[in-house]
Amino acid sequence: MGKLSIRRAERADVAAIAALLRDDPLGSTRETDSISVYEQAFDELDCDSNQLLCVVADQSQVIGTMQVTIISGLARAGARRGLIEAVRIASHRRSEGIGEAMFQWAINYCRERGCALVQLTTDKSRPDAHRFYDRIGFSPTHIGYKLEL
Amino acid sequence: MGKLSIRRAERADVAAIAALLRDDPLGSTRETDSISVYEQAFDELDCDSNQLLCVVADQSQVIGTMQVTIISGLARAGARRGLIEAVRIASHRRSEGIGEAMFQWAINYCRERGCALVQLTTDKSRPDAHRFYDRIGFSPTHIGYKLEL
Repeated sequence: MGKLSIRRAERADVAAIAALLRDDPLGSTRETDSISVYEQAFDELDCDSNQLLCVVADQSQVIGTMQVTIISGLARAGARRGLIEAVRIASHRRSEGIGEAMFQWAINYCRERGCALVQLTTDKSRPDAHRFYDRIGFSPTHIGYKLEL
Repeated sequence: MGKLSIRRAERADVAAIAALLRDDPLGSTRETDSISVYEQAFDELDCDSNQLLCVVADQSQVIGTMQVTIISGLARAGARRGLIEAVRIASHRRSEGIGEAMFQWAINYCRERGCALVQLTTDKSRPDAHRFYDRIGFSPTHIGYKLEL
């Protein structure tokens, strides 16, 4: 992990992030080769102070990404929560502890932003991810429902 | 449902929303009697165009609430998603179809905001909620993990 950095994504990272999203069993069926849709989404995120799109870089190469959204709300005595979405690590860089470092970074960021809770959902078809989240201390207390429009 | 309205919450609704959050098996253990924490959270939500805190009102009485957050992201070809949190209906007004009306309203709102997906998590200890989400067309494809900070 010595030479890796975790930082806010820049517009120049968008193509590399899209490539990580495509390089995934579920992503391969629902991502696209068009870069403009990703750039448009990046522009929406980048001007929102409650959104933090991150990359993990090994020198100039992007090898991981995740999105953290800070959400205020009345529930749980007005708790702010951090939502983590779209976590990906390049397939050739797994099992090196990169995911754990990303999550420590994200959890620290959520704590700094005053969150009382960090939450995420993961597809039931990702048993490796479930083991990972169990191991780093998350509790699988909820069912995640989705409705495609 | 004739005389009910679903509308954006106002600051004057905060006490009624907090009462709904407390009137819940899980909420009763984690909410508070202090109103100021809810007012502070309301103020954070109310100035964020990606946040919509709603109430269902029967004339002047608030009998339901939910929070909709619009989240941009790169995943799923730059899809925007709607996240629904903190759905509550007053215990004496259940089984009247109010939840279904609230969700139709929320789903329409997410569609208008360009979302490709609506998502939520529900505690595994809420079987009535699971039946409800199954019935209105949501798919329980994910596991919802939480980490309290």
